[in-house]
Amino acid sequence: MPKRSRQPVSVLFHSDSGDPDMLYLSRFDAFDPYLAFSIGKKRFGVAPDMEFGRMVKESAFDEILLLSEIRKGAARRFKVPKGKAPSIPQLIRHLAKLHGIRTFRVSSRFPAGLAFELKDAGLKIEVAGDEGVFPERVIKTAEEVEALRKGNQASAAGFRAVSKALAESKVRRGRLVHQGRTLTAERLRELIAQASMEKGAIALHTITAPGDQAVDCHNAGHGPIRPGELIVVDIFPRRPADGYWGDMTRTFLKGEASDEQKRLVRTVKKAHALSLEMIKPGASGGKVHRAVEDFFAKEGYETTKDSNDLKGFFHALGHGIGLQVHESPVLHAKADWRFKKGMVVTTEPGLYYRGLGGVRIEDMVHLVPGGNELISRAPYKWQIA
Amino acid sequence: MPKRSRQPVSVLFHSDSGDPDMLYLSRFDAFDPYLAFSIGKKRFGVAPDMEFGRMVKESAFDEILLLSEIRKGAARRFKVPKGKAPSIPQLIRHLAKLHGIRTFRVSSRFPAGLAFELKDAGLKIEVAGDEGVFPERVIKTAEEVEALRKGNQASAAGFRAVSKALAESKVRRGRLVHQGRTLTAERLRELIAQASMEKGAIALHTITAPGDQAVDCHNAGHGPIRPGELIVVDIFPRRPADGYWGDMTRTFLKGEASDEQKRLVRTVKKAHALSLEMIKPGASGGKVHRAVEDFFAKEGYETTKDSNDLKGFFHALGHGIGLQVHESPVLHAKADWRFKKGMVVTTEPGLYYRGLGGVRIEDMVHLVPGGNELISRAPYKWQIA
Repeated sequence: MPKRSRQPVSVLFHSDSGDPDMLYLSRFDAFDPYLAFSIGKKRFGVAPDMEFGRMVKESAFDEILLLSEIRKGAARRFKVPKGKAPSIPQLIRHLAKLHGIRTFRVSSRFPAGLAFELKDAGLKIEVAGDEGVFPERVIKTAEEVEALRKGNQASAAGFRAVSKALAESKVRRGRLVHQGRTLTAERLRELIAQASMEKGAIALHTITAPGDQAVDCHNAGHGPIRPGELIVVDIFPRRPADGYWGDMTRTFLKGEASDEQKRLVRTVKKAHALSLEMIKPGASGGKVHRAVEDFFAKEGYETTKDSNDLKGFFHALGHGIGLQVHESPVLHAKADWRFKKGMVVTTEPGLYYRGLGGVRIEDMVHLVPGGNELISRAPYKWQIA
Repeated sequence: MPKRSRQPVSVLFHSDSGDPDMLYLSRFDAFDPYLAFSIGKKRFGVAPDMEFGRMVKESAFDEILLLSEIRKGAARRFKVPKGKAPSIPQLIRHLAKLHGIRTFRVSSRFPAGLAFELKDAGLKIEVAGDEGVFPERVIKTAEEVEALRKGNQASAAGFRAVSKALAESKVRRGRLVHQGRTLTAERLRELIAQASMEKGAIALHTITAPGDQAVDCHNAGHGPIRPGELIVVDIFPRRPADGYWGDMTRTFLKGEASDEQKRLVRTVKKAHALSLEMIKPGASGGKVHRAVEDFFAKEGYETTKDSNDLKGFFHALGHGIGLQVHESPVLHAKADWRFKKGMVVTTEPGLYYRGLGGVRIEDMVHLVPGGNELISRAPYKWQIA
């Protein structure tokens, strides 16, 4: 029988809302670091006085403590000289005393400086492992699914902008000319960023990789877009309003594709459909990834994962997404977890070969009883005349 | 005499480029966490194989180690079973052995989980205090000044958008109508975000606070903009290309200001001029802040810093800026540091009173011999007909 502690777990934060777990706890957009903690399900925020009103109105905290009050209490407890402010560790030790907390659980991202000081002061600090401080983040609420849908709508707006720019481009001496300028990977990213922003999301690190550039998955794409080249477009924008992400990939080509390119796209699309069939509550994550691997091999598409000669299908099939663009669970060959109702994952099979280019198709799905539902839709039309 | 260690200091990172010190060391935009360290002035990056080419081309590292090679070495050293990968602490211990490092210096933001594991494994981890791991960040190079200037050009584009929208607005029943819609604080932020983006920078958390809303400095501003109300517009966009920020504030008013409002703006403008005169190498940071406090008091503008009744000039006069929007040094009343050539700081005097509204004027200056230079310019015209 597992050992049960007498007290509920307390999770401690000192960060701004850039930390996804802090944002999960607080639902509060904060530019500056502040203190927050939980006791079991109860959420406490420590509001700088100027933030109190906004925190009452906007945050998910059950109880909001006023920083100036906590400071006064800590100054008394630790006999801080008048005119000096108690330190953050002193504030935390005061809060711990007030609430009878002896052990704080913290995320592996918790700042080391503060963690050492708290330990030295006699508090027990327990650092969460890979499962994180809120393993329940893996199951999404209806509200979270809605936020992810809005994120994806920003991705979709980006695809529309790309599709439109390709359609409007004329071919001139092996390049595309759009609005009087050579159409480049960089220009496509500008158009995507603008379209995404109009949908309330910030698209950074977008990939618009033409031809062989897509074979290097970390290459954002540079220079002119050429007719007849596959272009991998991966857009993962973040919504500042709530911190949730979109993440979708489409592949495009201006003009007419070769038979080889057509077969590559068709094969990736089939793998995508296969994964959608297999992703359901109870199914093994690793098994879905391996099924896609096997399908590609059966179709004659060879994979090598040697870093000097990457080709074929060499990345994970998908990943969880929420307040982080990549979060648990990850769909890779050795994944030993099973899908659960309420999870949201991407599926993004891809094939990449030098001389032929890359194809990746990525959608986001929500696990529902017996299967999954696409979180949002975007056309798969890839050849643009 | 200070104790001198025999070895140069080694600073260790495991983070993405969201950490400003990591970005300072690497000058490399990385979405995923990776390992980097320095030995004295020499910078080492550990490149995931897919990032190697880009890191060679784009980063400031003097030596780039291939992650797969470090993994092989660590696997041998720690006898990691075949098919398993060595852990991050094992990679770090292997690197430490290879380079004869026994003590790593880390930023207070270093992840606590990793710090504890390294300590448990016998490495010495020294957490930097408020001065940070790279105290030299406070002195900016010509290149950094140029990046900050570009950041400010995005702020300036935002002011132009606000000024234009106010000029184009018609007054209808006590509200402003712009392009057929009531002009709101939220709409001004949209226009600012678009203008900023066209200049290559992302403006989040922008303040567009009309009337009494500006008295609460953490209030972003909400609802309709009314004629005859002061509007504080504080724009601090970040450039994804290099990570540097802009930060400027202007105050606007649509229509004709009252005499009281005019005197408020005039007084803040004078305080701004006073600070520009005083900011020079050798001058005390605290003294400049106090001079502005004294000037406001002399002009009859009362300040209270009681959180229940904030009014007057209750915030810091300015702050350093670079890879963080707020960084060392801070210009507050008790600041005991002196300006140095090469520093970049903002000066942002402001006055705020319920019933009258707020005024803040902020510029960024570069410390040069004998004085300072404005990093960039934006008009101070505030009454928009």
